[in-house]
Amino acid sequence: MKIDVKVKKHEKIYTGKFINFYADDIIINNKVNTRREYIYYPLAVGIIPVTEDNRIIMVEQYRYTNDYYSLEIPAGKIDEGEALETAAHRELQEETGYDFGRLEKVYEYYPAISYSKERLIIYAAYDLIKKELPPDEDEFIEVKFFTLDEILELIKENKIMDGKTVLSILAYVTFIQKKGL
Amino acid sequence: MKIDVKVKKHEKIYTGKFINFYADDIIINNKVNTRREYIYYPLAVGIIPVTEDNRIIMVEQYRYTNDYYSLEIPAGKIDEGEALETAAHRELQEETGYDFGRLEKVYEYYPAISYSKERLIIYAAYDLIKKELPPDEDEFIEVKFFTLDEILELIKENKIMDGKTVLSILAYVTFIQKKGL
Repeated sequence: MKIDVKVKKHEKIYTGKFINFYADDIIINNKVNTRREYIYYPLAVGIIPVTEDNRIIMVEQYRYTNDYYSLEIPAGKIDEGEALETAAHRELQEETGYDFGRLEKVYEYYPAISYSKERLIIYAAYDLIKKELPPDEDEFIEVKFFTLDEILELIKENKIMDGKTVLSILAYVTFIQKKGL
Repeated sequence: MKIDVKVKKHEKIYTGKFINFYADDIIINNKVNTRREYIYYPLAVGIIPVTEDNRIIMVEQYRYTNDYYSLEIPAGKIDEGEALETAAHRELQEETGYDFGRLEKVYEYYPAISYSKERLIIYAAYDLIKKELPPDEDEFIEVKFFTLDEILELIKENKIMDGKTVLSILAYVTFIQKKGL
């Protein structure tokens, strides 16, 4: 299936501190006039940090938008012109106080495909060593260690509500650890 | 960990056809002034339609925001005042031409927790019967049937980029079908 899309108007609605917002008027198949409203968000990286004794380093933080204390894998935006691996080193050190020796790709996807240009690339990170960077001044993060089984139990009980964490852990278990499938 | 958040300014930036956009100035722990920019998006439902011969009904559609032809589970917003199950019946009929007899909850999560209020509830749907509703006029959808193994192979090759589909299928396999874990 292929469709034809023409853009009648491309409008930047808002230039934000973190995200920009757009609204485009489009015509589909020379017939249907409609509108698409969406966020520009930079490429982002999510990291599953795996310790030598097979624990996962997680971060708990308050998510204002959803008024929710959220347990998540470390993640962050890639800065303009920054290499993906550099961003991964920086984010992991800022959020957990650890650096990694090696990355293994787990998955790449669009978290909100219909209204956000965000693309998120997930890695598992190994050979961790303590190495801190000061956290972002508006991030208040608590670092917590879990076994994979403990995280899977939390997911099973739907106690982890952050999509990237659920997707990443299930993809890691299924395709990297190859449990069962 | 608990933090204190005060809202200094709550501003509606944009009222859209599908989504609204907000920017709030907040003070964290009486010290850090920062800004949160986010989307209001209604509660949404995603459906894994399982046929009697154990195939999954998927929909392929063009996603303008990411210029990407995307293979996905059926999903949609819940209208103002609409019951969740009513929305599930409506969306499945509009997108696939099938209705269901029974739902089973798979997961509930925030797809973009930091900048969208969207909460997505995923169900598996059983006892399918043919029953069509006309599709939304600006949605061009192709219906496709897959076995679960075929979808898992596509995910393994990272050929499915839609987050809700990857999360939903992996959660369904792990917690409903209980493959391996």
